Amino acid sequence: MRILVTNDDGIYSPGLLALAEVAAAFGEVRVVAPDVEQSAMGQAITITRPLHYRATPMGGLEAYRVNGTPADCVVLGTHHWDKVDLVLSGINLGSNLGHEIWHSGTVAAAKQAALLGIPAIAFSALMNGREPEFDLLKPWVGRVLEALLREPRPFLINVNLPPNPKASCGPGSRCGGTRAGLCPAPTPWAGRTSGLWPTPTTSPRRAPTAGRWATTLSR
Amino acid sequence: MRILVTNDDGIYSPGLLALAEVAAAFGEVRVVAPDVEQSAMGQAITITRPLHYRATPMGGLEAYRVNGTPADCVVLGTHHWDKVDLVLSGINLGSNLGHEIWHSGTVAAAKQAALLGIPAIAFSALMNGREPEFDLLKPWVGRVLEALLREPRPFLINVNLPPNPKASCGPGSRCGGTRAGLCPAPTPWAGRTSGLWPTPTTSPRRAPTAGRWATTLSR
Amino acid sequence: MRILVTNDDGIYSPGLLALAEVAAAFGEVRVVAPDVEQSAMGQAITITRPLHYRATPMGGLEAYRVNGTPADCVVLGTHHWDKVDLVLSGINLGSNLGHEIWHSGTVAAAKQAALLGIPAIAFSALMNGREPEFDLLKPWVGRVLEALLREPRPFLINVNLPPNPKASCGPGSRCGGTRAGLCPAPTPWAGRTSGLWPTPTTSPRRAPTAGRWATTLSR
Amino acid sequence: MRILVTNDDGIYSPGLLALAEVAAAFGEVRVVAPDVEQSAMGQAITITRPLHYRATPMGGLEAYRVNGTPADCVVLGTHHWDKVDLVLSGINLGSNLGHEIWHSGTVAAAKQAALLGIPAIAFSALMNGREPEFDLLKPWVGRVLEALLREPRPFLINVNLPPNPKASCGPGSRCGGTRAGLCPAPTPWAGRTSGLWPTPTTSPRRAPTAGRWATTLSR
Repeated sequence: MRILVTNDDGIYSPGLLALAEVAAAFGEVRVVAPDVEQSAMGQAITITRPLHYRATPMGGLEAYRVNGTPADCVVLGTHHWDKVDLVLSGINLGSNLGHEIWHSGTVAAAKQAALLGIPAIAFSALMNGREPEFDLLKPWVGRVLEALLREPRPFLINVNLPPNPKASCGPGSRCGGTRAGLCPAPTPWAGRTSGLWPTPTTSPRRAPTAGRWATTLSR
Repeated sequence: MRILVTNDDGIYSPGLLALAEVAAAFGEVRVVAPDVEQSAMGQAITITRPLHYRATPMGGLEAYRVNGTPADCVVLGTHHWDKVDLVLSGINLGSNLGHEIWHSGTVAAAKQAALLGIPAIAFSALMNGREPEFDLLKPWVGRVLEALLREPRPFLINVNLPPNPKASCGPGSRCGGTRAGLCPAPTPWAGRTSGLWPTPTTSPRRAPTAGRWATTLSR
Repeated sequence: MRILVTNDDGIYSPGLLALAEVAAAFGEVRVVAPDVEQSAMGQAITITRPLHYRATPMGGLEAYRVNGTPADCVVLGTHHWDKVDLVLSGINLGSNLGHEIWHSGTVAAAKQAALLGIPAIAFSALMNGREPEFDLLKPWVGRVLEALLREPRPFLINVNLPPNPKASCGPGSRCGGTRAGLCPAPTPWAGRTSGLWPTPTTSPRRAPTAGRWATTLSR
Repeated sequence: MRILVTNDDGIYSPGLLALAEVAAAFGEVRVVAPDVEQSAMGQAITITRPLHYRATPMGGLEAYRVNGTPADCVVLGTHHWDKVDLVLSGINLGSNLGHEIWHSGTVAAAKQAALLGIPAIAFSALMNGREPEFDLLKPWVGRVLEALLREPRPFLINVNLPPNPKASCGPGSRCGGTRAGLCPAPTPWAGRTSGLWPTPTTSPRRAPTAGRWATTLSR
């Protein structure tokens, strides 16, 4: 399985490395990410200047940095690598919930993949005033991948990881998925959570994406 | 009625002036638009630098230019002008159909307004290798506004004007609305066109982008 | 005489219009200026993306805006207009004295012209917390042009206009030119002011920036 | 001795690492460099948005990346580190000779240091269609440092390294320094080359900087 990994915090982000390392257990990984932070860039694409694509050291992984947006990285990355099976975006430094998703470059990268017909998952990690503990989150990212890769494809999923997933997701906790919607409208609950999330609920946190599935994992 | 007018082609675009002039027949108009072209910026917002807001001559209209994105202009413009009733974006130099809407700054400005609870319409004009004839289009923009302002609010509409609306929209032509969708899904035709467009259809309003309305006026 | 006019405050700046209007009494004027403010850009040139060149309304003058730096505007403007005789840059909103000249886009535009072998003058206006009164300054800009156009060419001059030149430049005031230098060196006063400035001095003209002339008009 | 190292090719450039590693033999090294390529930015400084300063892994060296220009990096780097003794800029991927120096961010970083009263050397490496062999150049950078640190301070030097210094700089080769000048003017030879360069010559390559010393090491 070919897995393209990107983000919007830029090639330096520890969240990108964490996600790529988890992904490497599931298939062949290539990282193509912005050279600088591109937070809040939405699904902007670059149309007025040429893009550069440069190899970058990143652990033992194959990685490239691009002078463009997250959506640019997905377009370029899938153009230069045939038959990408899955696009992962993140792990974002901070949540992408509610209206944040309309501006989020992390989510936009996943949307861009979905527009190209490729299953995609955006990962974001809640911050409580400090950087997420990625070593603690990595096993949970793996569990999310295991669960979602059993789903029919294509899919577009937006996952928000709590600071400490184990503590958050016990019985009775409100873990579940929601479908995207504009704020005034009541948001129909649409979680699909067999396996990973025990409690389908009506979440007060709308984490919509783009007409398909949004999944939140929140307290 | 307070009407905020913006675009993504920048404060200089003749399409912006044309739209603002039509709007002036419907209410009090204020123009807040990017100082330079922001095409394909999607719903990017500016979070890493301060925005400036400067008065700009523009016919007799009250107009400001902002060193930011279309979505920035809507956020700033509605923040500094209480109780905006309607946001208009465009007239874009070129169509915004199909997947173009995901990257379009023109449509994103309207989406940003809808997220803030304000009715919004994006206007785009098809180009056949040359600039649209805005004098020819302006009466049709007026007719679209007349029709849409009778609709219940809030709404989010994406209008694409053909080069010569009168010629295009006769009986039998395919004028109508479509629902947004991700690419793999078949896009149900879902126009609703009483009054302006000759071919009424069944579906309620659909959003190109955000769960509400998409309206296209195409051959 | 062909006179290319540019600045670093951008095509909208009232100082640019004032300078172009004065220049129009001396020859054929074309304005090529940045589309947005480019203050403190130094002599940066654009090498990683294409530049656009667009006609812009500006009184009755021929004017173009460029998505680039002041130095870009001079390179493009002289490339597309044969045999430019003089490049004027400004009138800058604020002084360009001392080390400011190393970062100034206004001065850099004039330096760029000098590198291309074209006489050039940078104009800056001191601000006392408000915008310069350009109507008051315009006759003095004309007097500077009259005086400098009698000089042998090529030249590179940096003129700083006081808020009220008439009041500032009486007998005994320190009006004159100075030589550029790196900070540790004492800066010899080197004005040369026959005609315009009352206090002639010994030193030949000196460039603030490039081995030739710097002329300041200060209290 | 505190040595601040920067460049204009960005924090990733192998030339930056090579220069920092050589510098580490001469004193305490801190790297502060742009997060992305800033070639041709001249002495631009950032005045319209906040700058960020982030620690970055770079071998065992203390290194920071800044979302700004080379001149910004020198200003920030010397502001946050008291009593910097020397600023080194480079090793640039490509020469900085003749008029290139007016646009060069590499040279501008050194100029910025000189304006702040700190001795500075810019290093550039000629490219013959491929990346310079920095391992081969590093001993020569060391020899240049040894020679220049014996000079009276402050100084501002622009060094251009040939692809293979040993081969280039034998007896009879044209190695020498030149003083900056505008192109039409005859460039007075002004090399000071005791020790390192055996043959003071009149170089056809003017490598000027800023009114002080420019030193070229060329075939």
